[in-house]
Amino acid sequence: MSRRGERPDAEALAALPVAVDAMGGDKAPGEIVEGARRAATEDGIPIVLVGPPDQVGDTFGLPLVPCTEVIAMDEDPAGGVRRKKDSSLVRAAELVRDGKASAMVSAGNTGATMAAALLRMGRLPGVIRPCIATPLPRLGRTPAVLVDAGANAECTPAMLVQFAQMGAAYVAARFGTTSPTVGLLSIGEESTKGTPLVKETHALLAGAGAGAGARDAGSGAGARDAGSGPTGFAFEFVGNLEGRDLLPSPADVIVTDGFTGNVALKALEGSLRFLFDAMLGVFGTNDETKAAADVLLPYLLPMAAEFEPENTGGAMLLGTDGVCVISHGSSNAVSMVNAVRVAYECATRGLVDHVAAAIRPPAEG
Amino acid sequence: MSRRGERPDAEALAALPVAVDAMGGDKAPGEIVEGARRAATEDGIPIVLVGPPDQVGDTFGLPLVPCTEVIAMDEDPAGGVRRKKDSSLVRAAELVRDGKASAMVSAGNTGATMAAALLRMGRLPGVIRPCIATPLPRLGRTPAVLVDAGANAECTPAMLVQFAQMGAAYVAARFGTTSPTVGLLSIGEESTKGTPLVKETHALLAGAGAGAGARDAGSGAGARDAGSGPTGFAFEFVGNLEGRDLLPSPADVIVTDGFTGNVALKALEGSLRFLFDAMLGVFGTNDETKAAADVLLPYLLPMAAEFEPENTGGAMLLGTDGVCVISHGSSNAVSMVNAVRVAYECATRGLVDHVAAAIRPPAEG
Repeated sequence: MSRRGERPDAEALAALPVAVDAMGGDKAPGEIVEGARRAATEDGIPIVLVGPPDQVGDTFGLPLVPCTEVIAMDEDPAGGVRRKKDSSLVRAAELVRDGKASAMVSAGNTGATMAAALLRMGRLPGVIRPCIATPLPRLGRTPAVLVDAGANAECTPAMLVQFAQMGAAYVAARFGTTSPTVGLLSIGEESTKGTPLVKETHALLAGAGAGAGARDAGSGAGARDAGSGPTGFAFEFVGNLEGRDLLPSPADVIVTDGFTGNVALKALEGSLRFLFDAMLGVFGTNDETKAAADVLLPYLLPMAAEFEPENTGGAMLLGTDGVCVISHGSSNAVSMVNAVRVAYECATRGLVDHVAAAIRPPAEG
Repeated sequence: MSRRGERPDAEALAALPVAVDAMGGDKAPGEIVEGARRAATEDGIPIVLVGPPDQVGDTFGLPLVPCTEVIAMDEDPAGGVRRKKDSSLVRAAELVRDGKASAMVSAGNTGATMAAALLRMGRLPGVIRPCIATPLPRLGRTPAVLVDAGANAECTPAMLVQFAQMGAAYVAARFGTTSPTVGLLSIGEESTKGTPLVKETHALLAGAGAGAGARDAGSGAGARDAGSGPTGFAFEFVGNLEGRDLLPSPADVIVTDGFTGNVALKALEGSLRFLFDAMLGVFGTNDETKAAADVLLPYLLPMAAEFEPENTGGAMLLGTDGVCVISHGSSNAVSMVNAVRVAYECATRGLVDHVAAAIRPPAEG
């Protein structure tokens, strides 16, 4: 069921709409449709909503691809995608597959979004498993990205090397990073630290026996794929990073398995939330603290905004033959504007081609 | 080389000194000796320092067990302990083994501290591998503890079940928690989420096939070992927790493998440090923000203090036949006062007996 034929070129992609799953997320369809409307009117991004017309309601003039089913937030992902062939998620993925949309965005069931994208768009040639890349703020700089942030609880060293390649292609496409640096999440700087998975991945990324699958790894920003066709993405491997290096990350890409990545990401989110809440509690102590807080909040809020998941544009699925943005389940209209913007930008900048080139099997190189 | 004969009873332990590795940590010996001195004079805790006399310098009247070697912070742990038999770390562990100290405290090389404690004190009967328990703040309540926070990068389900048992015994001994709750760190609440390790551990902790090794697991606070001898510790298994549940943890004990635990712990430490630093930056923006900060700081600092590693008393090694507190490498005098206090309290409250009882093989039960 995956894509047949050529991917649309940049000009064609820019004219295609972004498919928005109108029924995905805790605040669907209200906030989702509102965010899509704003992205269309404020940014001029072409949009197509997907959902059951009677449930979506007013589309504010946005086109709607009708369907009859919705995969619930807590539904079994694989089963949902298999059974609900006329669901908003599956139909959105099919629009990308069929060249009728440049990208899909959903704030719905994360597992089902991944499954729909994977099953309908298919994997890019050579990709072992798609992964999720999630931005990590670095105040005043472009975010770093964590891959895999939760798609694959179990990983092999070869998968982690591909996550590095795809993550580097992603920061290049999204942020224009020309010489991405990649770090490997571990429990010590030394290459001997960590699990066998981490130690073997370290050896591959450092270039010893990297082989074709990681031919650019560790060879520095100057190394490029010499083959024909799109240029492979080089990156510089900076070695192991630790949990304390996640904020702010010294590397543009932090590679880990999806279990560790998900735990670490949620630990960061939880601790920042905890501290913000505790701080707000202090601010409200008495009239004097409230007045002091009024002075500081104009300075603190922009900083806090950089940590808000709603402003990061959501997570990107990498390795599928089409752009798929997975937005937080709690997404509001602001989150959706940002998610649609990221989806559109990455699609028109040829993210999929970049990822394909970074992973392309050596036989095709 | 492990302990022979009976452990000292509570009264005997209270009379024994805490052995402090005077050469352990980035700020050794100055801050370490000063912290030990304060614990002795302010809390009346008996202390014995261990270190080379010419390097330790003034002991302010504290007794010193002399030795000739020091294991460096970055030295290979196993090799250091094997080669440097007359090092402060090894000698401190031997004092506990030989019944001449109630506990040992070091802010030195974490791996070497574990190795010295394990090799000299030995494992408690039935313990597969010792683990590190690190406190996680819960504002206004007793901290939760994370086990394993980094001793074992690779774990089996049976090891994780023991971490739960030892962690529960620890919070009972240290904080007086009568019915400890235990959660399992994973990437979703459902028992089907996570790695095979997590899924198998979940099944064991939930009681299905727990067997003798986890005989109290999941059976609620009412369940007690009916055998003779010390009473086993019961705990209530509350299911999976996610990274966002670490601060504040709804469970008294959070169980995970040492790789995930170390990454998560350092992610928390790093994000809190990042946010505090960013906040301090905002406070210093101009005279108005400085004045506002002066109003708020008396309220913010006590909160920040709860997050400071120096105030948590360090991490506890569980499963060895003797109390061993592993303090942060950056420990100052305040950290050491707290670490010595925790070591002394846990030793005199019979932590080792409690852990032994929680783990005791069924044949002895």
